[in-house]
Amino acid sequence: MRIISSVREMQSLVNGEIRTGKRISLVPTMGALHEGHINLISEGRNRGDVLIVSIFVNPTQFGPNEDFTNYPRDLEGDLRKIENLGVDIIFAPTQEEIYPVEFQTYVEVKELQEHLCGHFRPGHFRGVATVVLKLFNIVKPHVALFGEKDYQQLKVIQRMVRDLNLEVEVVGYPIVRDKDGLALSSRNVYLSPNDKNSASQVSKSLREIKRKFDMGCRNTKLMVEFGKKILEEAGVNDIDYLEICDSETLGSKELASRGDLLAVAVRIKGTKLIDNIRL
Amino acid sequence: MRIISSVREMQSLVNGEIRTGKRISLVPTMGALHEGHINLISEGRNRGDVLIVSIFVNPTQFGPNEDFTNYPRDLEGDLRKIENLGVDIIFAPTQEEIYPVEFQTYVEVKELQEHLCGHFRPGHFRGVATVVLKLFNIVKPHVALFGEKDYQQLKVIQRMVRDLNLEVEVVGYPIVRDKDGLALSSRNVYLSPNDKNSASQVSKSLREIKRKFDMGCRNTKLMVEFGKKILEEAGVNDIDYLEICDSETLGSKELASRGDLLAVAVRIKGTKLIDNIRL
Repeated sequence: MRIISSVREMQSLVNGEIRTGKRISLVPTMGALHEGHINLISEGRNRGDVLIVSIFVNPTQFGPNEDFTNYPRDLEGDLRKIENLGVDIIFAPTQEEIYPVEFQTYVEVKELQEHLCGHFRPGHFRGVATVVLKLFNIVKPHVALFGEKDYQQLKVIQRMVRDLNLEVEVVGYPIVRDKDGLALSSRNVYLSPNDKNSASQVSKSLREIKRKFDMGCRNTKLMVEFGKKILEEAGVNDIDYLEICDSETLGSKELASRGDLLAVAVRIKGTKLIDNIRL
Repeated sequence: MRIISSVREMQSLVNGEIRTGKRISLVPTMGALHEGHINLISEGRNRGDVLIVSIFVNPTQFGPNEDFTNYPRDLEGDLRKIENLGVDIIFAPTQEEIYPVEFQTYVEVKELQEHLCGHFRPGHFRGVATVVLKLFNIVKPHVALFGEKDYQQLKVIQRMVRDLNLEVEVVGYPIVRDKDGLALSSRNVYLSPNDKNSASQVSKSLREIKRKFDMGCRNTKLMVEFGKKILEEAGVNDIDYLEICDSETLGSKELASRGDLLAVAVRIKGTKLIDNIRL
């Protein structure tokens, strides 16, 4: 497992691999790796000859009042967690390497970025799309793997790849949950045991709404109100959104259909948690 | 000379060439080819093994009141003009091929796009950057050639390439002028013989300002006033800008230095003409 921090070195290495016909697979991460990342990395191992994991806490996807400074960083711990997974290269650039002072180019996926988290995190998906495009240009993957917890991110990236004619297969991989149903996230380290109890109600509310849907309910307003009540009864009052939307356009719906996305974002003592399931 | 209109076909063809170690050179154009393009194409022939010329009138770089509909189009004439220049492939996609209905991803080079033409053509450089990024992803050139008449465009693209970590060498090529000094442009076909007389004063005003500079003048305000007077005396009253700016940042300057950019944009009976020289 080789650690590379220079963009040039990374590019010249993958250029060599590609010339010899190797298939590159990439798992982009912000570090603080958990079981969700481990699954992506294991899947990435199956899908390419050269497996690259990038670790970079991307400043441009954090708002001015968000947790960029405090975001958990533990490169050594991360390396230990993945040492037996067959990773060939860790790409861990510095901030200056990715964003030199004169940097000024940004990518936006205009419509998809507006929905769901877009309302509450202006500029977030611009930062995501920009850094992922850069990573794709640096690592030149044939396949890149992303977790479905960040479902909107996955859709933004898939749309960007199609719109910009990139030849990267972008694969989404199912959410990994703890025993109480809480979707794994690097931000879960911010939660006290008590907070975790409340947080586990987030996925419970999604399951309960889905149960309503399975019983025949189609009125999204009713289903959302029902879900919000569950959250509020569990003390989760700071809800950014709880929404049923089209799983491709992310536009919200009045009448739910099978396959729609049910997505939620809440804050528990300031920690933002998101989750989703498909109806 | 093969003509390709499909993105997939273009990509699979260049992928094959690149696998065998070929160097791709690209001259992106909007057609209506003139001597300036011919020079770029000849230079492109020297710089790569496979020479690709793209012809695509890009709708996203035209404003709602600009000349997208009337922009000169003459694919057959263009093909005749370049049949002996050793072009391997003409990439001439349809609008739907480049911008399918769901298209929504745009690139912006935030600071460079604001100066000069940016004030007068909002969204123009966003359209330019987006289509050029797409062309680079489709044609995968090692080297791409652009005319220096569109100096701001050249700088926007060079900045985008660096910021997004693309491995494309972006080469600018000197302006070609007619015998009266008028910079060649596809839009010159809009001009009557009388208009051309006025138009030739545009480059004259630049040369006169440069002469002032060479004689020791450094006050850009004085130099610009002097240049505007020359234009107005020649009946060119519709001046978008006449400006002396830093040749890299395009920020305007109070005191001129050797190497600065002197750039002008005027409208002659509605036809937009731009030109520039370096001090």
